Formats: sequence, C-alpha cells, structure tokens
Amino acid sequence: MITLASDFGSPYPAAMRGVLACKTNTRLHDVAHDLPRQDVRGSAFWLRFVLPEFPPAVHLAVVDPGVGTDRDAVVVVAGDHVLVGPDNGLLLPAARALANDQESVRAHAARVTDPVSETFHGRDVFAPLTAAVHEDGVVALRESGRLAPTDPVDLRLPDATRDNGAWHGQVLVVDDFGNTVTNVPGAAIDGVDRAWVNGMSTPTVRTFAEVSPGERLVTVGSHGYVECDVNRGRGDEAFGVAAGDTVVLHPGR
Amino acid sequence: MITLASDFGSPYPAAMRGVLACKTNTRLHDVAHDLPRQDVRGSAFWLRFVLPEFPPAVHLAVVDPGVGTDRDAVVVVAGDHVLVGPDNGLLLPAARALANDQESVRAHAARVTDPVSETFHGRDVFAPLTAAVHEDGVVALRESGRLAPTDPVDLRLPDATRDNGAWHGQVLVVDDFGNTVTNVPGAAIDGVDRAWVNGMSTPTVRTFAEVSPGERLVTVGSHGYVECDVNRGRGDEAFGVAAGDTVVLHPGR
Amino acid sequence: MITLASDFGSPYPAAMRGVLACKTNTRLHDVAHDLPRQDVRGSAFWLRFVLPEFPPAVHLAVVDPGVGTDRDAVVVVAGDHVLVGPDNGLLLPAARALANDQESVRAHAARVTDPVSETFHGRDVFAPLTAAVHEDGVVALRESGRLAPTDPVDLRLPDATRDNGAWHGQVLVVDDFGNTVTNVPGAAIDGVDRAWVNGMSTPTVRTFAEVSPGERLVTVGSHGYVECDVNRGRGDEAFGVAAGDTVVLHPGR
Repeated sequence: MITLASDFGSPYPAAMRGVLACKTNTRLHDVAHDLPRQDVRGSAFWLRFVLPEFPPAVHLAVVDPGVGTDRDAVVVVAGDHVLVGPDNGLLLPAARALANDQESVRAHAARVTDPVSETFHGRDVFAPLTAAVHEDGVVALRESGRLAPTDPVDLRLPDATRDNGAWHGQVLVVDDFGNTVTNVPGAAIDGVDRAWVNGMSTPTVRTFAEVSPGERLVTVGSHGYVECDVNRGRGDEAFGVAAGDTVVLHPGR
Repeated sequence: MITLASDFGSPYPAAMRGVLACKTNTRLHDVAHDLPRQDVRGSAFWLRFVLPEFPPAVHLAVVDPGVGTDRDAVVVVAGDHVLVGPDNGLLLPAARALANDQESVRAHAARVTDPVSETFHGRDVFAPLTAAVHEDGVVALRESGRLAPTDPVDLRLPDATRDNGAWHGQVLVVDDFGNTVTNVPGAAIDGVDRAWVNGMSTPTVRTFAEVSPGERLVTVGSHGYVECDVNRGRGDEAFGVAAGDTVVLHPGR
Repeated sequence: MITLASDFGSPYPAAMRGVLACKTNTRLHDVAHDLPRQDVRGSAFWLRFVLPEFPPAVHLAVVDPGVGTDRDAVVVVAGDHVLVGPDNGLLLPAARALANDQESVRAHAARVTDPVSETFHGRDVFAPLTAAVHEDGVVALRESGRLAPTDPVDLRLPDATRDNGAWHGQVLVVDDFGNTVTNVPGAAIDGVDRAWVNGMSTPTVRTFAEVSPGERLVTVGSHGYVECDVNRGRGDEAFGVAAGDTVVLHPGR
C-alpha cells in the first residue's frame, strides 16, 4: 500500500498517481493534496495526525518550499512503515509517531539531481523513488547504492510551556473550517468552565453545540490539543490568529 | 466495497480510510467529503442522489451536528446495501431509495460511548463499526450484541405542494457552482416556456446554452427536480436564495 | 484501469464512479474533477499534461459546454490507451500525446440520444460507454454497431509565435495557486536573466525562492512552458491576466 500527500492542489497529484500506477500494482490512497501550502511544520502536524491510522505502508509526502535548491530526497524507515519525501523535516514527526520507539527511525538519503528546469520533483523524483522503495525495499536500494544512510534534517513540533498557571503556545494549523489547532495540551482545560485565550474569556466545552452559533469556544480536538473555534463560524477570524501565532491560555474562571 | 461520505473537509477523512484499511482489504470509494456542512437534510439529498448508482456496498456517511450528544450510531439494512452513520436521519432517504420496497429497510443501533473528549467519531466510532459490518455482517453483530434493532430517527425530504397552479417548494441544496436544486418536481415545467420563480419571470430550458451567459434559467436537473440556475453564473445569487429557502414557482408565460 | 476527469465538482463524479463500479471490477483513478469549468481548451491542456503518466488505460473525461446539444460521444484510440468523452476536441491533444505517432489516433463515434431532460451525461452516457469500452473493447463495440468510425472535432492548443525576438503567446490555464501557464516554450528564456512580460520587467528564475515573497517571476514549469508566477502569491493577479489572454514576452535584459 502506498499513501500520497502533498500541497500540490489539483491536478498535479494525478501525475504522481500515474507514475506510481506504471511501476506498481499496489493500492494507492490519497491522504490529502491540500496540506498547508509550503508550510512544512503545519503539514508535518497533519501527517503525524493521519498516517498512524494506516496499516504498514510506504507514505509519499511532498511539501517542499526548497524545491530546486540543493536538498536530498529522504527515505525514513519507522517501524513497519517507510516515508519518502524531501529532506526538510516534513516526515520526522510522523515517523516518530509511527515507530514503536525512537531507535527504530532510520533515514536514508537519495541524491536529487536536477538537470532540467522543468523537473516536477513529485512526478520525476519522489514518485519513482516511492515505487522503488515499495517494490524493491530499502535494503536492496542501499545495496545498489541508490540510498545511503543519512542524518536527516529534523523538525520537532514546538511544545507549549507553562508559566505560573498560564500556557504559552502556538497555533499549529488552521483547518478548512477555521478551527485553530494549538499545541496546548488538552489537559490544560480539564475541569475548568472557561479559559482566557489571548485575553478573551471563552467557555470550554466538549461539543460546539454548547455555545450559540457564532460564539467562540475552546475545546479539545481529536488530536488531543486545545482548539480555539467558533460554533458554525471561523475560529481563526474570531480569535484573530493564524498558523504560527502565539496563544496565551489561562485556564480559569 | 465500502463508500465514504462526510462533511469533514480535508485531511480528516484520510484517518477514516486508514482505520478501514487496517481492518479490511475491500475497495474504498470516496463519495464526497464536502457534503453540506452540518446540514443533515442537504447531505441526505446528495446521498440519495449518489448511493443508488453503486453496486451492493457498505456505505459510511457522517454529517453529525449532534456529535458529542447522546445519540447512537445506526446501521441501516436497505436491500443489498448497508448504511452506517449517526442516528439523525441522514441515512434514511438514501436507504429508502436503495431498498426495493419500504419493508426491507431495517435499522439497528450501536451504542456510542464517548469516554474521552478527543474522540473523533468518524475515526473512532463509525469507521470501526463500518469495517465490522463489512467483515462480519449485520447478523453476526446482532448475535454478538453489538447491534440491537432500533426505530431510527427518520428524516423525509419535504415535498413541494401545489396550490391553484403554483408550486410551493424549498431549496434542498446549492451545489458547488451555485445551482439551486429545489424539491419542485420536473414535471411542473413540462410544456411551458417560462416560469415565475419568486416573482421573477424566467425561461425554462433544457440546456444552459439556451440563454445568454449571466442570464437566469429554470431547468430540470439530473435528479428530476427543478433547478434555478444561471448560465455561467450562480443561481443562488441571482435568485437570492439559499438551502432551506422557500421557492414559489408559477409555470406559465 | 479507468481514469476519470471532469469539471463536475462534487459530489456528481461519485455517480460516475458508482456506475463504473457496477459494470467493471477494474481500478478507478480520479485524475481531477475541478478541470477548468466549461473550458475545453484549458481542460485539454491538463489532460495532455497528466494522462501520459498513466499506464495503458481507458480515460473518461467530460468537460462539455455543449451538453444537451446535438453532439456525439467519441471514443479515441491512441496507442495502447483509449479516451472516452464528448466529441468537442477535449480528448485530442492528450490522444496525440498518448499515441506513438499521429497515425495511431483513431476516433469512433457513439450516438447520444437524449430522450429525457434529466439525463446526466456523465452518469448516463459516458460512464456506461467507458465501462463497455473497458470490458468489451473497441473492436467488439464496432462490430456490434455501437461505435462507428468518425472524423472527430479536433482541437489544437495554440502555438506561440516569434516575431523579431518577441514571443506572442497566450495563457493556457491558471492553476489553483494563480500560476499562469502560457504556451511560450521554455527555451524562450534560456540563458536570460530577465524578460519583459506584457511590458513588465521580470526576473527569470529556476526556483520561486530566488525572488522575495510577493515578487513576480518568470520560470519554466514542469510542462515545459513559460509560467508567469509570484513567489507565495498569485501570478494571474500580479500580471493581470486570465486564461486565454495574450502574453507578449521579450527575452532580454
């Protein structure tokens, strides 16, 4: 099984599917091709959220602001899963989640040579490499010299910090509906009815319907983090925040 | 075969696909994940439109404004098809369309327990239940006690009424392109060249191209109902209506 | 293998998938269902870009401003591939790219009869025809009389012309991100640092990152043509052009 994820929109991902379908008969699952555009950190969050739900697979993921620069492709073995993509940290948070333990994450580099300007790396580099990993396996590709062990570019999603009862965090991603996912752990709002979010007193709820349409709320999302949302509205607009912005949350009354 | 439909946007549905791929090798078909958001009635319309085209399958569909409240999951057997989703009426119009006769629609409830706030019901409740229905069958799940017969929450799409030659109906859904699908039967405009729609005299056509770009038109859509559209424009804006709004149509001249 | 492409948005394409799944067990690959709406030429460009990446397949593609008018369906044999869609030129550029040589493109017509106004041609005409082509083959459909040789409506994407050092071309498509793909060949900007595009002096680059965010750039896309883009912005807005508009490019300084 191969999964595909990117920030390519449409119809570019179909070119990757075509290349894969030429080289392997395995099943292809699109994860998403509207990952946050050129946002490696936000995309890494979503991959970490989604990929662990899949059975062992080769996961192709491309969000690559550095395309055309001198960076390698990377193949990351994480437990029974293998991830393939640009060596920019994108795959590492998901890889650590997929591996049973940190030891089992091992990375290999594949040199990317870019002889012509019209190279589409998703189609011309990453899809063929993904098919080779799926069909031949990492060991064979190492023995053939196509892959070499590497110390990959790492990326760690930032942790929120706690200071005197207040949580200092960030917005990791904003989803399609304007729900803002922070890195403040859900436990922060355990047992409290309200929280101050960047100075705005906001009810903490389990379900959106506990507040009126258009009202702000704070809840714990299915990823386990605090979300700043609006019932039938956009949390990003109501709280005035975007991906990367600081969130200071005071649990309380 | 399993089909998936929801109003989850992206990338949440991939988590459901992953869970299903862990538990079954059957083929997965995405129907749509941009069903009208939190609009059970509009989403029920689309499911009734699309699902009857499929061969016998287990159909997972989740549009669930009541998530987190005390509602069960429901498994509806409809002829050779089975539908799985929240017990809020979403599945019933499609189930009646899929069943050869009304008698053959039978519903079973599965209790949803929601111990932790970060539950994502699509991933944690409905996808596993769908896989179990596909792999084990409804009979085995009844015998094991996981399912129990129930009288499900019903939903019927409203019928338009006729009064002194005028049709009183509603907009059921507005599609991606602003085409407004009403519940007025297509036969209402048989043999007439124009109709008054909420007071606006509008040509009745078979093809959009019969009017100039930007002009309003009334036609019969592939679902058999009257649509209020604009050639290369948005019908919802030109007619000033949204899903749920009243439409009064006078066939005539 | 069957691929599907259209400008239908969502959820209409699922009805085509359902019909196909009733009639064949082959794998279905969605190419894109947001092809440029009712834009046969722009959609033909994307099909020519994507379909050659696939292994031999039957390719269903529907972008059909003339739906409801008196036009046939067409089945185009192109090398080991077969394309199915409306006889409006949509398939021809991709067919020539898929065929090893021009001789091997052969077209067959299937009469479209449209007895009822609520016909959805994607679901009711093209999907069944595609399944028949896949399951029975073109030869059998010719022998049975369902297909007859035809001289299809042709479409050729326009070529840019060169006049006294300047290239006169057009915008073929604008992608999701506002990148404007022209028909000026990439070789036009070989070896030059800047180009004048409709009077705007613009750097020619290999990677977007060579200019600051928000700055205009000219580059060669993965299709081999000149694109007029903006780093982290919309090229169509910055250059003031849309699909079909004229682009005059002076390579130079």
